Amino acid sequence: MSKQEGIAIKKSENFDEWYVQVILKSGLADYSAVSGCLVYRPLSYGIWEIIQKVADEEFKKIGVKNVYFPLLIPERLLKKEAEHVEGFTPEVAWVTQTGDTKLDERLAIRPTSETIMYDSYSKWIRSWRDLPVRLNQWNSVLRWEFKHPVPFLRTREFLWNEGHTAFATREEAEKEKKEILDIYQRITQEFLALPGIVGKKTEKEKFAGAIESYSIEHLLPDGKAIQGPDFHYDGQNFAKAFDISFLDKNGKKQYAWQNTWAITTREIGVMVAVHGDDKGLVLPPKVAPTQVVIVPIFDDKTKASVLKVAKKIKDSLKDVRIMLDDRDYYTPGWKFNEWELKGVPIRIEIGPRDIKGKKVVLVRRDDLKKRAVPIKKLEKEVLKELEDMQKSMLKKASDFLEANTRTANDFAELKSIIGKKGGFVQAGWCTKRKCEDKIKELTGAKITNMPLKQKPMGKCVYCGEKAEVIVNFAKSY
Amino acid sequence: MSKQEGIAIKKSENFDEWYVQVILKSGLADYSAVSGCLVYRPLSYGIWEIIQKVADEEFKKIGVKNVYFPLLIPERLLKKEAEHVEGFTPEVAWVTQTGDTKLDERLAIRPTSETIMYDSYSKWIRSWRDLPVRLNQWNSVLRWEFKHPVPFLRTREFLWNEGHTAFATREEAEKEKKEILDIYQRITQEFLALPGIVGKKTEKEKFAGAIESYSIEHLLPDGKAIQGPDFHYDGQNFAKAFDISFLDKNGKKQYAWQNTWAITTREIGVMVAVHGDDKGLVLPPKVAPTQVVIVPIFDDKTKASVLKVAKKIKDSLKDVRIMLDDRDYYTPGWKFNEWELKGVPIRIEIGPRDIKGKKVVLVRRDDLKKRAVPIKKLEKEVLKELEDMQKSMLKKASDFLEANTRTANDFAELKSIIGKKGGFVQAGWCTKRKCEDKIKELTGAKITNMPLKQKPMGKCVYCGEKAEVIVNFAKSY
Repeated sequence: MSKQEGIAIKKSENFDEWYVQVILKSGLADYSAVSGCLVYRPLSYGIWEIIQKVADEEFKKIGVKNVYFPLLIPERLLKKEAEHVEGFTPEVAWVTQTGDTKLDERLAIRPTSETIMYDSYSKWIRSWRDLPVRLNQWNSVLRWEFKHPVPFLRTREFLWNEGHTAFATREEAEKEKKEILDIYQRITQEFLALPGIVGKKTEKEKFAGAIESYSIEHLLPDGKAIQGPDFHYDGQNFAKAFDISFLDKNGKKQYAWQNTWAITTREIGVMVAVHGDDKGLVLPPKVAPTQVVIVPIFDDKTKASVLKVAKKIKDSLKDVRIMLDDRDYYTPGWKFNEWELKGVPIRIEIGPRDIKGKKVVLVRRDDLKKRAVPIKKLEKEVLKELEDMQKSMLKKASDFLEANTRTANDFAELKSIIGKKGGFVQAGWCTKRKCEDKIKELTGAKITNMPLKQKPMGKCVYCGEKAEVIVNFAKSY
Repeated sequence: MSKQEGIAIKKSENFDEWYVQVILKSGLADYSAVSGCLVYRPLSYGIWEIIQKVADEEFKKIGVKNVYFPLLIPERLLKKEAEHVEGFTPEVAWVTQTGDTKLDERLAIRPTSETIMYDSYSKWIRSWRDLPVRLNQWNSVLRWEFKHPVPFLRTREFLWNEGHTAFATREEAEKEKKEILDIYQRITQEFLALPGIVGKKTEKEKFAGAIESYSIEHLLPDGKAIQGPDFHYDGQNFAKAFDISFLDKNGKKQYAWQNTWAITTREIGVMVAVHGDDKGLVLPPKVAPTQVVIVPIFDDKTKASVLKVAKKIKDSLKDVRIMLDDRDYYTPGWKFNEWELKGVPIRIEIGPRDIKGKKVVLVRRDDLKKRAVPIKKLEKEVLKELEDMQKSMLKKASDFLEANTRTANDFAELKSIIGKKGGFVQAGWCTKRKCEDKIKELTGAKITNMPLKQKPMGKCVYCGEKAEVIVNFAKSY
């Protein structure tokens, strides 16, 4: 970056434009030569590495192992499960030619890996002794959507984890649901400071091929909902299509019970959108690749002595991800703007006068307040401020979610809230598809999910019959 | 694995067949529904995760950062550097269609990412202040070769790191060569226990688009050489093709100097081939996902007490990757075979009699000798044996390499060694392409590389003129 450009638009004025500017100007990501495919620059990939590490450790604790399956899926495999193929084929990128040779069978770039993985599972699983199989891969998938792409939130290629498990019994498969949703909730809330509503998808909105889908739904500042990590209980659908069967302890043939689950780089986009401000990114400390930046303030005369102290401070803060910006061809002011744009949680300013006073200036990215901190108390203060900032960011986002989750008692109210205020609207639903469709048609809102935490329910917000469940309506990405 | 199958063939009798059996039967990897593309099962992927972790930490220490660039490369970008496109297009898999729509421009699945990355570099690099750019990605690439695929050693899709760097000066770019080759040597030697010959590739054998290529060349038990990690100095070739230019401190336009470098999952195959034996895999302790397995020996009466001690031992060995195989539906003998097949470095056997004697039996996978070890000395002994085994495996492989690196003083000798014994043959070369071609034609051996460690040289082994360099000849994968 040889020329520095700040964000030229306010978040409150034009959220869409602000969002793209923050991503490009902070150096988080960039457009690529392929429409709808993003370049993950070091800043966003560094955040993704932290998310991966946390999730991966949790997956391994519950017994999941990592694997890598081929990128390409023969057309005949993709077609084996009817609903699944119907759900994905409109978005599949096809390899038809290699070198100068036309292929006999088209190969799909994986939109998701159920079909190529389950082809192997059917070979590997023969006896109850071979179960459970709990495998995961970290990779990229491609879905050639034709909707307008939005960095991180809707891209044709994105990064994710895909867990694919097989169990001997339905009970074991169902038990995994809580394990995985808990892990995803921990990552989104504790690390990304993103609250969300955990719930079950409707039949209409569930994953192609699944029996039941569950999701964490986030809310963006523009009042639109967006789906976060998800979990799909596939029952025996794929097991029957791919013959994933085994002999149980009585020697009887049984089909396996399966789940699939994923968290994607979309979360990075949600994090940008929820926490960013008019000066740029604001990164939750737990996922910030650099948590603290030291900006020394010096002239030619004081350079050596200031850098010496700055270096000492850097080395003394061992438990944080810290860097010293000792470049002498940018001014401190230029650097302040740069690190604010990039969302580094804490900035430490240190100049000759601070050194004399045995203190530094500490600036937190979320409130930008200047705090004078004695050098000997710095380590303790930095750790405390990082923790406070993490909590404060989650609280702010949770307050926003709560303030924008409203209740509608009848259809007029639902329509009015969706049209004027946005956000989530909770209301009773009879579970009939025709009410769900009609509400979507008339308001533009879909059922994001049916929260696991239910409330007493009255009537269906559309037809007025007895409600079977409380659901969340929202306009959605 | 409900039925256990050992290796049905000796390594010394039929290396090729043995190699494939070890990989499939140990559960390291499996064939997939796509010809030439491998499934990396948990065992091989676990080894790859360790290699990645070690390499990644080293890359980060020298200032390299990770990124992710799109999988697909538009044809026009791939074609920008003439030699590069010529080198790769015969092997490129082309996406021509997405959903039902034919694309206007074909998209290549990355065979390597220079072209898509440098398109971005040309946008990002404007001033000397923006340099160096040292980026790396861990991903998979696809090269649709039509040669017979061999698991890990030659597959159409493989996993690797690809480092792509740009510097302001030639000197900085050249300095990186030693940094990277040292890291790769450390990983291959210290971790994979694989010796290799570090050297420069000839013009004929260098990477398409590079000025100079360097490689580490390994030797397989069948006497064939195989290329390991490599480093390419690209000079300004790509910088000129993609306009990666910057204004230097004097305001003058300059082109960047570039390198690219990679280590691939092929190393896993070399490791299998070099270290494996007639009972299966032998994993170097430093890359073994499980370093120690405890196999308890019990009947219904002693089960609880044996498992209690076994569990305690497991918990006490904190610094090793350890597992307790407490499955009661397999016999100890079955488990011994299984863990030998999978190459776990140390097996600890413990039964009621051992517990009475306050000892266990320790079996090292490389020599299969049984050692009685007092429980209170176990931690120290396990760490010592793991270290000894690691060293011993490298020594054995190094002895083999040394014994199979011979010198030829004339062409008859070269031809005879290549034909009868295989391995590396060191000989003088005049550096003329026509001698290199002729030797390949008449012996089947190519110049694997020109070792960095040179010896006094005499005449070209083919034309008899003055030799300019000592090179290694070998038949090669």
